[in-house]
Amino acid sequence: MTQSSSGDNPVFRLPERLLLGPGPSPVPARVLKAMATPPIGYLDPAWFEVMAHAQGQLRRIYNTNNARTLPISGTGTMGMQACVAALVEEGDNVVVGVNGYFGNRLVDMAERLGANVTQVENVWGRAIDAGALEAAIKKVNPKVVMLVHAETSTGVRQPMDDVTRIVRDAGVMLLTDCVTSLGGVAVQLDDWGVDAAYSCTQKCLGAPPGLAPVSFSRRAVRAVAERKSKIHSFNVDIDLIDGYWTNHAYHHTPPNNMLYALVEAMTIIEEEGLDNRIARHQQNHLALVAGLEAMGLSMNVPAGERLPSLNAVGIPEGADDGAVRGELLGRFGIEMGAGLGAGKGKVWRIGLMGHGSQRRNVLTILAALGTVLNHQGIACDASGAMTAAESAYG
Amino acid sequence: MTQSSSGDNPVFRLPERLLLGPGPSPVPARVLKAMATPPIGYLDPAWFEVMAHAQGQLRRIYNTNNARTLPISGTGTMGMQACVAALVEEGDNVVVGVNGYFGNRLVDMAERLGANVTQVENVWGRAIDAGALEAAIKKVNPKVVMLVHAETSTGVRQPMDDVTRIVRDAGVMLLTDCVTSLGGVAVQLDDWGVDAAYSCTQKCLGAPPGLAPVSFSRRAVRAVAERKSKIHSFNVDIDLIDGYWTNHAYHHTPPNNMLYALVEAMTIIEEEGLDNRIARHQQNHLALVAGLEAMGLSMNVPAGERLPSLNAVGIPEGADDGAVRGELLGRFGIEMGAGLGAGKGKVWRIGLMGHGSQRRNVLTILAALGTVLNHQGIACDASGAMTAAESAYG
Repeated sequence: MTQSSSGDNPVFRLPERLLLGPGPSPVPARVLKAMATPPIGYLDPAWFEVMAHAQGQLRRIYNTNNARTLPISGTGTMGMQACVAALVEEGDNVVVGVNGYFGNRLVDMAERLGANVTQVENVWGRAIDAGALEAAIKKVNPKVVMLVHAETSTGVRQPMDDVTRIVRDAGVMLLTDCVTSLGGVAVQLDDWGVDAAYSCTQKCLGAPPGLAPVSFSRRAVRAVAERKSKIHSFNVDIDLIDGYWTNHAYHHTPPNNMLYALVEAMTIIEEEGLDNRIARHQQNHLALVAGLEAMGLSMNVPAGERLPSLNAVGIPEGADDGAVRGELLGRFGIEMGAGLGAGKGKVWRIGLMGHGSQRRNVLTILAALGTVLNHQGIACDASGAMTAAESAYG
Repeated sequence: MTQSSSGDNPVFRLPERLLLGPGPSPVPARVLKAMATPPIGYLDPAWFEVMAHAQGQLRRIYNTNNARTLPISGTGTMGMQACVAALVEEGDNVVVGVNGYFGNRLVDMAERLGANVTQVENVWGRAIDAGALEAAIKKVNPKVVMLVHAETSTGVRQPMDDVTRIVRDAGVMLLTDCVTSLGGVAVQLDDWGVDAAYSCTQKCLGAPPGLAPVSFSRRAVRAVAERKSKIHSFNVDIDLIDGYWTNHAYHHTPPNNMLYALVEAMTIIEEEGLDNRIARHQQNHLALVAGLEAMGLSMNVPAGERLPSLNAVGIPEGADDGAVRGELLGRFGIEMGAGLGAGKGKVWRIGLMGHGSQRRNVLTILAALGTVLNHQGIACDASGAMTAAESAYG
């Protein structure tokens, strides 16, 4: 048997892209190279070392001592499902903060599992109000509160101090979406008292999509052990998944190459330093905002509640959403995200995540977007935007 | 910001392995190279072309015209969960063929979803008896029958003609596990009348683990549409997953690189020709069996029911299971699978899957295993095994 070694499959003659949307974010060449390491057996002692190494890295990035911290073999959606499925049983009272697409999805997941869901709503583009959350908790005495730290659909960063204090004081469990924050925005699982958290690999961690880092507190592990019913799904049964990570008892065949990629991406984070990385995300975010505002555009989220990794900006009067994004993609190879759900047609989402959060990317998208808007007859000052962004770097 | 380009992470100084266990199977260099193509956005028109291409390839390998044929973004276990979750509702009668670990898992999954499960059992190492299946179907009039085509835990290939005729005649739905057959053993979804099938990428397809190709018949799609209850899990809701593949409506961020790898692996299958590939798997299997039997070992499955891709062989009297596998791994870098479940300590599982199904691998494991057994004081004729295997090639 012979195998051609050319590998020149026309299917992979893909255009080059600058990924400044809601994810995937640009993947460093080192990570792609590490990903191409050949797979080995899921019970190979050499593989166990990679697994243990990854768990240590994840705990440091999550700022947690939780033993049950591991990357689930699926995308962020599967991590979300595993967390919700673990903590929710039929008839449970659950409180969910809903101010965007992913809050709605938490409601959907919990309701499919038979929970009685109380929603604490706010408009898309604003954080959940701590007082409203406190009132809901007092009213329904939930088993779990679910909050989105980083609402990818709107670009809102939930300020965590007040809400986590309220949940802690109430003595109930807290489940948190860290999809667009982990690795680029401070996530303090233990300080916040989070009981279950999930994220993904293709945003601020800087790896390709395909794994969902999760973490469960000791209280959450106990709650799973004390369930009255089995978890609805063998696939996301966190006890069985953890049984593989901890005792190497077979549950499924893990995607080796995705873990190689994640480990390399987390090694890059360690080399940069997590604090430096978080500061970098913030700095590039501030420069982008300065540029967008100098261009006459308006951010969709007030300053104190903005995610640095996902910048939602209002589509200016008269601009054609699809045409602008199409020109950015077609002429410049730049992906800028459309709005999602209620934001569709109203905002653009500019991701500055992981390796994508760079000064040259900020200046590039400002120049390209300004030029496209002008080209489409929307007057704006691209040169002024560039100057304003550079000033923001100081 | 600078990134070191060395990529010389000590974590990836992994030993080289010859993967002849239950999967992952050896991945051709071309596939690893394709996998390292940079990810692009999940709504990028260029990405849609890769998706459509993959679906066409999968339909040909599954021998189906099913529109709903796609690789689910997770491992084979998630594909299994998605199929079971789609077709099972609380209170449904379900008949499951159980003659190994994966039959048991189907029972577990169906029971977690509230099904009334009737098991048609046989001993581990034998196929499900068509008469027993027919009797069970007559007795409980199930909504779905679940059968494992390729029982990875025992090496049994279920002969499909009789059982599928019985299920068709009864007019009930058929769900089939093709995890260890797809791409190496003939799978005829449409001819068999299968309504839902799942597989994985890391066995006979020859890609790394991480995706689960599934296929649903029109009848199954209609059955999902007519459910009384929502699918328990947003994550495996096949209507939402298919909505992304068909209408590009967001459900989750797909793992681009896994799909690149799968497309390249399927391109290799097209170049070889599916029929040639199936014949290759059979030929190498027969040679391995001839060699093992010449060595005095006994196959665990009767000749008419053997999977060519997964060869379960009895552990000879006096041999130390772990010590033999340990020597194979430690001295030769060869992974041979342990028994799973009831087979633990009783059989070894030798995988000849995808790129791993090669004459030189057959001869290599025969020589290495024979040598190790002799070294551990179990007399066997490794030279005779080699000769017998070579004779089998003709």
